[in-house]
Amino acid sequence: MRVGELSKRTGVPVPTIKYYLREGLLPSGELTSHNQAQYGEEHLRRLKLVRAMTEVGRLSVAATREVLAAIDEPTVGLHQVLGIAQEAVTPRVTPGDGESWTRARALVAGLVERHGWQVQPEHPACQVLAQLVVTIQDLGQEDLLEVFDEYAIAAERLSAAELAMIGNRPDVDSKVEGVVLGTVLGDALLGAMRRLAQSEASHRVFEPTGRV
Amino acid sequence: MRVGELSKRTGVPVPTIKYYLREGLLPSGELTSHNQAQYGEEHLRRLKLVRAMTEVGRLSVAATREVLAAIDEPTVGLHQVLGIAQEAVTPRVTPGDGESWTRARALVAGLVERHGWQVQPEHPACQVLAQLVVTIQDLGQEDLLEVFDEYAIAAERLSAAELAMIGNRPDVDSKVEGVVLGTVLGDALLGAMRRLAQSEASHRVFEPTGRV
Repeated sequence: MRVGELSKRTGVPVPTIKYYLREGLLPSGELTSHNQAQYGEEHLRRLKLVRAMTEVGRLSVAATREVLAAIDEPTVGLHQVLGIAQEAVTPRVTPGDGESWTRARALVAGLVERHGWQVQPEHPACQVLAQLVVTIQDLGQEDLLEVFDEYAIAAERLSAAELAMIGNRPDVDSKVEGVVLGTVLGDALLGAMRRLAQSEASHRVFEPTGRV
Repeated sequence: MRVGELSKRTGVPVPTIKYYLREGLLPSGELTSHNQAQYGEEHLRRLKLVRAMTEVGRLSVAATREVLAAIDEPTVGLHQVLGIAQEAVTPRVTPGDGESWTRARALVAGLVERHGWQVQPEHPACQVLAQLVVTIQDLGQEDLLEVFDEYAIAAERLSAAELAMIGNRPDVDSKVEGVVLGTVLGDALLGAMRRLAQSEASHRVFEPTGRV
């Protein structure tokens, strides 16, 4: 198909498709004349994946390119693909060096140990957790720390179910895609579910009382 | 205290504090001479809250201002404060009108009904879920939809525990702050927990096999 047909079948404007081609997010089509290229089903699929990552998962072009490179390199195992996808969606936190950060890091290390997780303390998500602990303590909201273990247990159960399901897929390409999409779209999914559940719980807990 | 002291006690640079003052995120201090102002403990606390919202929760200045206005208006009940905080952290999704969107909306409505949630279909989080459903189906990853109910149950349990805890706080100001911080920081918390749990599950499920 030509680029116009690719655009029609995905709803992505032609200039955006050309931008993805220039940025290397989409492989070139097969040239049929000096300014005419043909695209196949694999381009269609890749374009949908790029849209999911950039528009729904809100990844940058650079982050999307890195994840796609991992997908396309067959020597990169599934666990590594997951790590690269995680890097792409985890905000960078600059760790502090004061006493409150030292305490926060110890608290996070304790949590990781309690749950028997094999992750390194340098994992970007550990830094995010440490920053949250520092913030919560600085604002005197220590009771919020009490829910950390419940959050950890919920995350454990959901991740195990999700990855087992992906592991059961019959072919390797769809396993790789599942790992990437689960990672990139999972935050939005969990965030949206949490808002609905929060609205519901708040309706029950707070609604009758107003601000008392 | 003077602005320099406020800066020293929070680590926020003086020009940033002045920016917050100009933008209305921080109330003015008490003028002691024509260009000298004094700040109190309530400024210190508000400044920490603004930092938590903008730096950790990654809210825009405009969104932060809206949430602060809700906090400061005593006639706004806790349930409404939660709604305003949710609005501030939920990305806007423009709903589509094709057949796939109609099906996705029906699927989301079914989920809401199954869980007995009283939320309106126009809730921004419902639109986010519908967009995720459209994306997942378009990419042929329908099995990922099977985990939606597990995610919903986990979100229900976590929200109920969190809001009950906040509801038990002794004074109304800390309840309001708890609702806002839980909403604004909760996504980062859940996202980070999920990444650690995913790393762990992936290590167990995929590591020995590489990409097979």
